[in-house]
Amino acid sequence: MILRDMGEATVRAALSAVLGILLIAGCDCSQRFKYEIKEFQVPLDHFSFLINATFSIRYLYNDSFVDKSNARTPIFFYTGNEGDIELFAQNTGFLWEQAERQRALVIFAEHRYYGKSLPFGSSTFNTSLPEHLAYFTVEQTLEDYAMLITFLRNDRQMPVVAFGGSYGGMLAAWFRMKYPHLVTGALAASAPVLQFPGITDCDIFYRIVTSVFQNAYNENCTLNIAKSWKLFETLGASEAGKKQISDAFHLCNALKTDDDLKKFLDYVEEVYSNLAMVNYPYNSSFLAPLPAYPVRQVCYYLKELHSTDADLLHAMSSALAVYTNYTQSAKCLDISVNSNADDSGWNIQSCNQMVMPICSNGSETMFRTSSWNFKDYAEKCYKNYRLTPKPYDIILRYGGRNLEAATNIIFSNGLLDPWSGGGVLQAPNDKVFVIILPEGAHHLDLRHSDPADPPSVRDARDKEAAIIARWIQDF
Amino acid sequence: MILRDMGEATVRAALSAVLGILLIAGCDCSQRFKYEIKEFQVPLDHFSFLINATFSIRYLYNDSFVDKSNARTPIFFYTGNEGDIELFAQNTGFLWEQAERQRALVIFAEHRYYGKSLPFGSSTFNTSLPEHLAYFTVEQTLEDYAMLITFLRNDRQMPVVAFGGSYGGMLAAWFRMKYPHLVTGALAASAPVLQFPGITDCDIFYRIVTSVFQNAYNENCTLNIAKSWKLFETLGASEAGKKQISDAFHLCNALKTDDDLKKFLDYVEEVYSNLAMVNYPYNSSFLAPLPAYPVRQVCYYLKELHSTDADLLHAMSSALAVYTNYTQSAKCLDISVNSNADDSGWNIQSCNQMVMPICSNGSETMFRTSSWNFKDYAEKCYKNYRLTPKPYDIILRYGGRNLEAATNIIFSNGLLDPWSGGGVLQAPNDKVFVIILPEGAHHLDLRHSDPADPPSVRDARDKEAAIIARWIQDF
Repeated sequence: MILRDMGEATVRAALSAVLGILLIAGCDCSQRFKYEIKEFQVPLDHFSFLINATFSIRYLYNDSFVDKSNARTPIFFYTGNEGDIELFAQNTGFLWEQAERQRALVIFAEHRYYGKSLPFGSSTFNTSLPEHLAYFTVEQTLEDYAMLITFLRNDRQMPVVAFGGSYGGMLAAWFRMKYPHLVTGALAASAPVLQFPGITDCDIFYRIVTSVFQNAYNENCTLNIAKSWKLFETLGASEAGKKQISDAFHLCNALKTDDDLKKFLDYVEEVYSNLAMVNYPYNSSFLAPLPAYPVRQVCYYLKELHSTDADLLHAMSSALAVYTNYTQSAKCLDISVNSNADDSGWNIQSCNQMVMPICSNGSETMFRTSSWNFKDYAEKCYKNYRLTPKPYDIILRYGGRNLEAATNIIFSNGLLDPWSGGGVLQAPNDKVFVIILPEGAHHLDLRHSDPADPPSVRDARDKEAAIIARWIQDF
Repeated sequence: MILRDMGEATVRAALSAVLGILLIAGCDCSQRFKYEIKEFQVPLDHFSFLINATFSIRYLYNDSFVDKSNARTPIFFYTGNEGDIELFAQNTGFLWEQAERQRALVIFAEHRYYGKSLPFGSSTFNTSLPEHLAYFTVEQTLEDYAMLITFLRNDRQMPVVAFGGSYGGMLAAWFRMKYPHLVTGALAASAPVLQFPGITDCDIFYRIVTSVFQNAYNENCTLNIAKSWKLFETLGASEAGKKQISDAFHLCNALKTDDDLKKFLDYVEEVYSNLAMVNYPYNSSFLAPLPAYPVRQVCYYLKELHSTDADLLHAMSSALAVYTNYTQSAKCLDISVNSNADDSGWNIQSCNQMVMPICSNGSETMFRTSSWNFKDYAEKCYKNYRLTPKPYDIILRYGGRNLEAATNIIFSNGLLDPWSGGGVLQAPNDKVFVIILPEGAHHLDLRHSDPADPPSVRDARDKEAAIIARWIQDF
């Protein structure tokens, strides 16, 4: 997810969020899991009797595990989030493993307005047709899924378990809350359902990133990073200083303008957030090829408090290279490449309902100060999409922190994940399960089992599997 | 509620349903309860980002019971249904009595498209502007109420209890299901949430009416009524026979045409349904001035199996007069007067979401045979309103018979009420309460206490009060 807020820096840092999903999704795992690709027709507007148009969403279908003699076959239903559904299918190994165990039908449903589920085809995002964006909401999406499940069950008594990670986890949880007659339970992994205005401090995301860095090696790491912003700004004020930065970081395109400098700083900030999100316990190549616990590696280069600007600059460069050039194959650093994520959809959702404030208090984090200002935010949304965000829509409908009536939801959160700050970390009752992964980054538990998984992840998956098995049994 | 189905007879009989609410609401009780009338602005379309228009709904407000020192003042919130909200306020005495006891804030919210809460003012129902009807749905209405409650609570921790009768009871139940973070519990009185396609037999309504008549005096009552249709038709085939009927029933306008005959038969059928609904244990004057247990009185006149047509005709006339002329003040019988109910709104709702099938198996009830045919139904809806009904919308969203996840709802049903056939008569779990009133007609328990209330109604109210008190206490 992209946390849209006011400072460019924050927007870029927030970009890391979507990367956490989409680049993980875009990993080099080839077609590990197989499925048929099907289409399902849904109303464009489920809630009005004015619009009768329909369009098709895609879903992935695999019944190879199903025991055909079982009339109560479980359906494992991934509530697709912001991206092509095939990417999620390939990167949610836990669902596949459990489907085999439970002999479940596997369904991955593509979220409207993503992948190939575009209500207006190639003109869906045409900025001169802003009315095309009117039906791009959580409620319409949940209705798509409700209709699809109703169709798949075809009047049979089949227990449905919803799965989702990040925004997909939010959808899974909300789906269970609103359609409990269709969904027996939901695994909501790394789902920041509380990251909304007025119910979570907007600086929590950056505080967690900072905390991850503080605990990675020694405290000099964050002190150096905090100090570096001033250094960059001072140097960046002169042409010679810009050159000094460009050289130290081996930038492909040397910094020329103040805008170039700003982009560089945003990029660096984004890298830190990305690192926290993918601070996985084994080598990975999701956002970038990385060593195990990459933040520790970064902080290793920042373990000493440097007395000179040149030393600090050099150390920062080495630290950043852990992320930007771990394979040592890059000739230079291209800061214009964000990711291969298609964030056009999420940018729009963040401008209608998914208003998830993020900010930074510079004195308490290693980041620059940035504030959350809804007025500016809304103006940008209107300028870009003719959309006026409704910041309290989600809380009004899904309850914010008042989750007492929720049942059969697992909220899992990794404590290394900056998004855990907006997650449910305390169970509102004994039918909602909170599972904490001390060694977990962003929805690691949803991925396929790996020999390098630390015990807390394996434990979490065992617990999740047991709860899901019980839901199916009790159905 | 009007149960729209295909036969005119059924439509008219179903009309009795709305009478059950609206004419009860239109009773001669004067301003028993006092309130301020306020307005609250709501979005025309809560679910789209295309329509930014707003309009105002009305709500009634009374804080005279409130203990101002109590920061957790309960709100008793009537989820307004199909009619002017003032009528419901005057006819839901139980809410007022309990509000006094619990020192609650009293709110009666008017349903959009009813009373003075018209989104397009006087052109709301203009048939040349069918687009005006697009936002006339259960979901939009519940959102109106959710926003109003959020506004009224103003961030304070105030337990909210929803109250509603008939369709208002359905709304109260659904409101608790979908917005449990806003509503602590709901009293859904005589709420036929199961009267939808495929989950309740369409003939249940008329079967219950028949049963009420069967048990009222002796079994000849329904035998006579069942026999009468044939008699009316045979007589009605000739001019002389039409005159015979007209004379026997003292019709103001003698039957001339076959259409006149049809209207007469529909009227008679409607009277039977009305009688069952208002088969109250004390004299009442809701649909018409009536004695206690009026069905018993009707059946008294039909206690013998008559051997001649003339005798049966005479007996039928006397029986019908219990309803049409109990005060003996009418000079003749005007069958063109249905009721003073404004059913234009409900007719529309029955053509979008509230598709509640009704039919009659002539061999098993005292009514004529009428079938339920969705195609015909839908065609009429399109012809009248350019609306295509969605018969499974309500089940998709509110679960049909799958209510296992529901909590803190009281479903109360009177066994004399034909609508109880579509009510929840078995609790899906121990947090949903089913209260049966053997002597209860349509949402009698919601009315103010009366010395003539039978024990089962008093018991029901005591139970309801105790459950509501516990919800407030547990909040």
